[in-house]
Formats: sequence, C-alpha cells, structure tokens
Amino acid sequence: MSTTVSDTQRAQRVVSDLRELAELTSDEHGAQRLAFGPIWRKARDWYQAKVKALGLPIERDPAGNLWVTLEGAKPESVLVGSHLDSVPNGGWLDGCLGVIAGLEALRYYKESGRKPAATLKVVDWADEEGARFGRSLYGSSAAGGSLKLSEVDHLKDRQGVSLIDALKENGIDIHEALKCNEYLKKVPGKAYLELHIEQGPVLESLQKSSGVVMGTFGVERHKIFFSGQAAHSGSTPIPMRRDAFLAAAQTALAIREIGKKYSQPGANVVCTVGVVKVEPCIVTAVPGECEISLDQRALDAGVLAQMYKEAREASEQAARDNNVTVRWERLWDIEPRPFDPKLMELCEESVREITGDVHHLPSGPLHDAAEMVPYMPTVMMFAYSSNGLSHCKEEDTPAEHLEKTIRAFLLLVDKTIAHVGA
Amino acid sequence: MSTTVSDTQRAQRVVSDLRELAELTSDEHGAQRLAFGPIWRKARDWYQAKVKALGLPIERDPAGNLWVTLEGAKPESVLVGSHLDSVPNGGWLDGCLGVIAGLEALRYYKESGRKPAATLKVVDWADEEGARFGRSLYGSSAAGGSLKLSEVDHLKDRQGVSLIDALKENGIDIHEALKCNEYLKKVPGKAYLELHIEQGPVLESLQKSSGVVMGTFGVERHKIFFSGQAAHSGSTPIPMRRDAFLAAAQTALAIREIGKKYSQPGANVVCTVGVVKVEPCIVTAVPGECEISLDQRALDAGVLAQMYKEAREASEQAARDNNVTVRWERLWDIEPRPFDPKLMELCEESVREITGDVHHLPSGPLHDAAEMVPYMPTVMMFAYSSNGLSHCKEEDTPAEHLEKTIRAFLLLVDKTIAHVGA
Repeated sequence: MSTTVSDTQRAQRVVSDLRELAELTSDEHGAQRLAFGPIWRKARDWYQAKVKALGLPIERDPAGNLWVTLEGAKPESVLVGSHLDSVPNGGWLDGCLGVIAGLEALRYYKESGRKPAATLKVVDWADEEGARFGRSLYGSSAAGGSLKLSEVDHLKDRQGVSLIDALKENGIDIHEALKCNEYLKKVPGKAYLELHIEQGPVLESLQKSSGVVMGTFGVERHKIFFSGQAAHSGSTPIPMRRDAFLAAAQTALAIREIGKKYSQPGANVVCTVGVVKVEPCIVTAVPGECEISLDQRALDAGVLAQMYKEAREASEQAARDNNVTVRWERLWDIEPRPFDPKLMELCEESVREITGDVHHLPSGPLHDAAEMVPYMPTVMMFAYSSNGLSHCKEEDTPAEHLEKTIRAFLLLVDKTIAHVGA
Repeated sequence: MSTTVSDTQRAQRVVSDLRELAELTSDEHGAQRLAFGPIWRKARDWYQAKVKALGLPIERDPAGNLWVTLEGAKPESVLVGSHLDSVPNGGWLDGCLGVIAGLEALRYYKESGRKPAATLKVVDWADEEGARFGRSLYGSSAAGGSLKLSEVDHLKDRQGVSLIDALKENGIDIHEALKCNEYLKKVPGKAYLELHIEQGPVLESLQKSSGVVMGTFGVERHKIFFSGQAAHSGSTPIPMRRDAFLAAAQTALAIREIGKKYSQPGANVVCTVGVVKVEPCIVTAVPGECEISLDQRALDAGVLAQMYKEAREASEQAARDNNVTVRWERLWDIEPRPFDPKLMELCEESVREITGDVHHLPSGPLHDAAEMVPYMPTVMMFAYSSNGLSHCKEEDTPAEHLEKTIRAFLLLVDKTIAHVGA
C-alpha cells in the first residue's frame, strides 16, 4: 500500500494521540479513566471526535462498547480492539494503546482513499479493568456472552454506587447489555487483533520491542487452609508441634518446583502464593492456622490440570508431614484461550519485518481478546514494558520500542485485512 | 518427720486452698488476679489471712513482694516462691500452686511444732505475668536487680494507667522498688524452690506426674525482613521473580532443621517462626516483602549461639537463592539459667520416691526462679499440664498427677531444709 505518510510517521501519530489523551485524562498520580465515570466519558468524547473527523460512523452496542466501521471490499471484518478505561492512577498505554493504534489504521485507510480488501472495525470495549466494580472484561464478556447477571447485580463501588446504576447513568440497561452477544454474532468477524503493553518483564529482559502472544493463560485460583494447633513457643518441643505455617511453607516451595517442572521456553507456566496469613501471628506462639492463596496459570489445559493436581498432592503431603489438616477452597478458574495459528504466523511475520527478530510469549493477565477466541481467529501483540510495570504512572515503553511495535501492529492489520479479504 | 497428717492429706489441703482461691477470684472466664488490681489484692488478703492464722509474720519488700518467714534452727534460708497474680481469664494453677504449696509447708511445720533445721521463707512475687503492663517478672526482677527504670517508666495498661501509678495505688514507690535488690541480698538464701504447672505437653505425652526442671531456656528473639520485588502473578516468569515469601518459607523450614539438629532427649531446644506477614498480600501478586519472627531457646548458651548463627546463615542462603535481601532486627535476648545440680538431685529423689519415676525437662517459659539463679542454688518442679494448656480457664492438672506432684514438692522442701540445715 503506497502513501505519502511513512510508517514511522504513523507510529508517531499514535504516540502523539496517546500523549494528548494522557494530558486530558490524567493527574499527577497517573491516568484516571475509571470506567463509567466522567473522565472515562471525557476520553471517549475525545476519541469519538477523532473518529468523526475521519467521517466514519460510530455505533454503541447494547453493552456500551463503541464500534467504528470502515467498509471494505467485503463485509467480512477484521476487528481491532482494546479499551480506553484505566485503573485509578494508571499508565498511559494500558488499554488505550490498542484503541489508538486501531484509530490510526482507520485514519490511514481514509487518508489513502483506498477501500481495504476486508471491512475494518475498531472496538473500544467498556470497563476492561473492572477496577471500580471488581468484574473485569465487562464489555467484551457481555459481547462474548459469558457475562451473567448473577455475577454483577450485587456489585457496588466504594461509594456504594451499584454497577447497574453506573450503567444507567451512561444510558446502558443491564438487561439489554446481557443480550450483547446477539450483536457480536451479527458482526461478520473473521479476525480479532489486539495490541497491548506486556505488563511483565519478559520482553525487556530479552531486549525485544514486540512479542507475539500465544494466548491467554488458563487460571486455577484457590485458598488453601492449613489447620494445626497453636502452642507456646517455649514449652512445646518441635516433634510435638502441629505447625500450620511450616506445612504452608513446605507447600509453597513445592508449588514453585511444580511450576518450574512444567515451564517450557516461551510457554512459561506460573504458580504464585501471594496471600499468607497465620494465626495467632505472635512471636511466642507456634502458628495454629495458616491460609495461603494459590494462583496457577498455563496455556495448556492439560498442563494446568496436572499442576493443580500436583499442588493439591503437595499440600496433602505437607499436611501429613506436619500433622495438620488441609482444606482447599476454589476462588476462580478459567480455561486457557490459545490464539489462532494463522494469525500468530502473520503477527510473527510483522514483528520480524519491523524488528528483525521475534519472541513468542503467553499472556499472564487476561485481555478482551480472550473473550473473542470462541468467536473468531484471534491474536495479540505485546509491547515492551519498562521494568515490567503497569497499573501505575511509571508504566512505559521506551520510544524506540514503542514505535517499532506500533509499526509492526499496523503491518499486522494490513496483512490480516489482506488475508481476510483474499 | 512424723505427724498425724499424711502427705496425701497435705496435698489435699493444697488443692482445697487452690479451689477456695479460684472460687474467690475467678469468673466464668477464668482467674482474674491481674497484678495490682482489686481482685489480685483480694487474693493477697485471703493469703495473708491464712498466714496470720498460722501466727507467722508477713513482710512486704520495697517492690511489693510478700515474704513469710518461719524461723529454723539456723538463719540460713530455704526460699519457696511463686506468684498469686494471673493473666486475665487465666487458670487455677499457674502461679498460685507454688505459693499455696509453700503455705502448706509452713502450716505443716507450725502444726508439728518442730523447728525446721533451716529457716523457711515463702515469697509471693508481685506481677510475674506482666499481663497488664507487658513487663513480666516485675517483682522477682526488682529483687534480682535486673529491673531497670527505663524499661518500665513508660509502661501503661489498656486504660492508660501507668505502671508507676498502679504501684503507687498499692503503696509501692518505683524508686524504692528499684532498690529491692538490697532487700534480697540481706536474706541468707541458700536454696530457692518453685513448683509450677508445666504449661507444655511434655509430661502429659510421657504420662508423668512431675518433672525436674533443668533450668530456664536462654532466648534469642528476632524479626527477619526479606525484601524482593512485588510483581504480577500472571506476567512474571518464575525465574525472574524476587519472591520474599519463598525466601522466608525456605528459612523457616531450615530453622526447624536447625532446631531438630540440636535437640537432645530431655534437653530439647526449640525454634519457632510465629509471626508471618507478607506484602502486598494479594492473590495476584508475588510477595515483594515478608517479615517473620524467630524465637530460639536452649538451655546451653553455646548451643543457643550456634543455633542463632546457623539461622542467620540459612536466611542469607535463602535470600541469595531467591534473589532478595535479608535484614535482622533483635527483639530481645536472655541467657540460659541452668539450675543447681545438687537441688536437681534432691528434686529427682523426691519425684522418684513419690511417683516411682522421673523425667528431666527444661523450662520454655520464664519463671521467677530465673531471677534467683544468680543469688542462690535454685530448682523448679513441674506438674503435668492437661493438653499443655495454660493462661486459659481450661488449664488443669488431673487430680492424681496434681496430688503426687504436690507430695513430691513438699518432700523436696523437707529434703532441702535438711540439706541446708546440715
């Protein structure tokens, strides 16, 4: 595709738009585009003004997601999606990078005056973060059909405002929103593309600008309770103790070994013990109770199931070894969502053409893309994340890496349109 | 010594007195003889009435400890001591068992009309528990000379009453109390004996009524801080983590092995990690910070020093293994106080004669006896502790074991008086 705008200039336009949005919607603590609030609406107004300037129509689906459509030679559509909402005190890239890259794709086609081989749709999903009400992927899961009324009808923010009332304030009826899957099913989506900052340290550690994402991890999330007997630290000989913490410590170390065992280069699994609480938690008492959390993630459902099984066995062994009991409580789980091989191939080509190199990695965090996997071929591209930081004002991708990644993503959009249009 | 009162009857009189005291100073939650308060004063009034009925003088030393003296053939004295104060919601034996056993020894000599070969002194130490102001062994450490003004001048109870004012309310001047060591030095003490409930599970596990106490443990008490990097549980591969909790878990397990390594039959050392706190303590974050406490105890100063050294090395190894840093902060320490071999021998004879069997064990908890070790030969005897429980209303010694232990202790008093008088 020939044009007078170079792909470097296109990337710079994306960065410039992102800076403009950050200026408009951040304070000294970072981005404040909390979903369904006034600053988020301001961000969307700004975005819609940019789209209108291109002369393109915007449609809001029943869940409140914004769709922009650029008709192509065929109705078969390539979707580019992400989210404008942020966590409180968030970064300048998380979410909006993907939407603004989509905007640039639209702008480029409009400027060139050429009709793309397939239809291009850019979607701004509502409330990906779930930072206000605790349910992430609201908009994309409404479209994907996985949002359930029973999950959200009781949700309130810290001020006591219910999600349902916050939706109403934005002209969204929850019952209509729950029918959003019908809207998605009418979209002739043949590919879904999403660009996002990695939010992890992998690309930085390899000094690579961009990564091809293999899919979103499946997750097993549990609480594990060990129950022994609190006892005086001075008068209870070690062999007579029923120390709940030592059982938990043994389990946590075993769980790391399980994680290591199933780690493969480029397809790392992760296992994390993040919560640790002991009772009575005093210097002079053997802990009688210990609660830990377990968060296991893997891209392969079989591996995830095996890691979970082995973690349970390790906890039971630790309980026996320490003469305590153990009880598990499931917090949450989701199956892995591997991405489409053909789109991963196009993504790999795009990254290699721009950066001369390529790295594949799974996505630990969930993304709206996960909700699209059941409906159409899907892939994501990640941008280098400085210090692996996200959800904070320090979030950043160094200029050189950001520019290359935007260029690679815009190339992926072109390649995918050509592929779908063919 | 011949008398018409059998040693079984003497033990029963002790139990009967203890029941009477419990009736007078407990509620449905247990004993309430909190030091320097009205119920503690009621307990002491009851005790002083019992002593007066025997026609014996009571003296209060400058720290508020109560001394009863029964003059013997020689001024050289055998001291029997313990404390009437209890924790809130305490048991019926902790502390008062030892004082009332002393009372029975006095009563027996008075009844028999015979002058003991050495002087017998029974002391009720004030505020052994430290439950109200947080400084245990107040009275005995004032006598022992280890109480420092700077340790206590800022102490307040939950109602904001200062220790100094509480002392005043009981007619005690803190500055006079701090001179109590002069009082003790004038006492020609040649032996100190203390009977106490074990407050641990050892004698119960061996089904032994009584134990010969080898000394009070030395203690090393520390906080250990591990500092790594909090990170997203989904996006941070295991090899890139700096997990402060896993370093702490590894350290805690290593510390248990150190404790096991230095455990000897009958002279168990103990090592306890009682406090465990992680930051940020959420399911989806690798812990960046972890604080644990360490409490190590041993009867041998060299062993204690070695255990401490190895624990530090283990923490440093764990820090290196997990790419985190570690920092130690000393909370408290005290040297071991081994008891007198000759008195332990007499104690062993007494227990063996009454129970047909003997077991030696160290004392994990501190006791007033520890403060007497620098001044005179000292020994303690322990009574079986049901379920190892103490500091609660469930605290108990089954009747048969209690009776045997009181008999053994009264025999020890006789033997010690004979020994000192010889």
